Amino acid sequence: MIGLIRVFTTEDSEVLEQHGQMISKIYGVPVINKCIPDQPLGIFNNETEEIANPKIVELGKSMEKEGCKLLIISCAADPAIEQLRKSVSIPVIGAGSAASLTALAMGQPVGVMGISDCVPAVMENILGNLMVQYIRPEGVTNTTDLMTAAGREKAVEAARKLLDQGTKVIVFACTGFSTIGLANTLRKELNVPVIDAVEAEGLFASNLYKQFSITN
Amino acid sequence: MIGLIRVFTTEDSEVLEQHGQMISKIYGVPVINKCIPDQPLGIFNNETEEIANPKIVELGKSMEKEGCKLLIISCAADPAIEQLRKSVSIPVIGAGSAASLTALAMGQPVGVMGISDCVPAVMENILGNLMVQYIRPEGVTNTTDLMTAAGREKAVEAARKLLDQGTKVIVFACTGFSTIGLANTLRKELNVPVIDAVEAEGLFASNLYKQFSITN
Repeated sequence: MIGLIRVFTTEDSEVLEQHGQMISKIYGVPVINKCIPDQPLGIFNNETEEIANPKIVELGKSMEKEGCKLLIISCAADPAIEQLRKSVSIPVIGAGSAASLTALAMGQPVGVMGISDCVPAVMENILGNLMVQYIRPEGVTNTTDLMTAAGREKAVEAARKLLDQGTKVIVFACTGFSTIGLANTLRKELNVPVIDAVEAEGLFASNLYKQFSITN
Repeated sequence: MIGLIRVFTTEDSEVLEQHGQMISKIYGVPVINKCIPDQPLGIFNNETEEIANPKIVELGKSMEKEGCKLLIISCAADPAIEQLRKSVSIPVIGAGSAASLTALAMGQPVGVMGISDCVPAVMENILGNLMVQYIRPEGVTNTTDLMTAAGREKAVEAARKLLDQGTKVIVFACTGFSTIGLANTLRKELNVPVIDAVEAEGLFASNLYKQFSITN
């Protein structure tokens, strides 16, 4: 089983399982989804990240004990990834590093789209000079904004701007884009390759998970 | 179609198509395999790499013209990858960077196994501090040595040594290991995850290729 960590609190099982179901559907691997406690608004600044970090580590440790063969921190900022890697003996994959490393393997100029003011540090560090530009869709500051028709339209418009700047590949720096299926919209409407953060974490996780069926 | 470049010369179509067939079989994508001219011994030092580089670029350019949607340089040293990326408008994936980036996504201590005296620079640069050790199986200096029972046994022995040094994941720095199916041997015998360079280049290439069926 792959253990997937959501870095906010929800009691809505449909919301909780969105990323895992996407990964199971695309790659045919089993995923169990869990979320951190007492943080319904998730991580939205340094302070809330500090509060979340130890919860992520504890959740990851308990999921290893429950038998997970590898863990995913399903957030583009890769919160607490180094701490968790030191605290468990199984591999830990992060959405932000997975998406950025996939872009690096392709080697083409990258445009990054997110909903924060700036790119997550982990992504900026990995992408380096390959990153042409970062963009936030106009008026979109949280994942709820993305659920509206206007939010989606602004996201497509932002992608068009990235292409105008020389972007050859669009990388998502927010897993909220996965939930609304924006990657396929951009692939179809703008004819551009898109690295979706949940698809990317699932690519590495499923590839590794399939090995365990050989080793164990 | 994915275009796969072999960096040596062969007229044996079975040998030529080994990597592409492996990728097609695992990931279900079409691959056309071509090799550079007049270099039957391939690349084995700086001089032969210098000679091969412009041939790789020319072959890649011609494969783009023939309709390939993306290219693979199927060699762990990623020879001529930057030059080729500047010369074509399609993505170029290299075996060495693909394998190293896959290891980085997992974040566990890496042991690298190859047949040269040292790790290809591209792999060393990407892996950084994550690389615990590099090893060359005793007495193995070319891919022919790997074909023998003794060569295979030495490779398994080398992998054991990597595990003794704290390696959690083994990364191949030679595509010759792919041809002999060493990854599955190590997964079964030593119960360790293995990043095979041809499997890794195929993972990124097939993931990207499948997007083109949406965009085009």
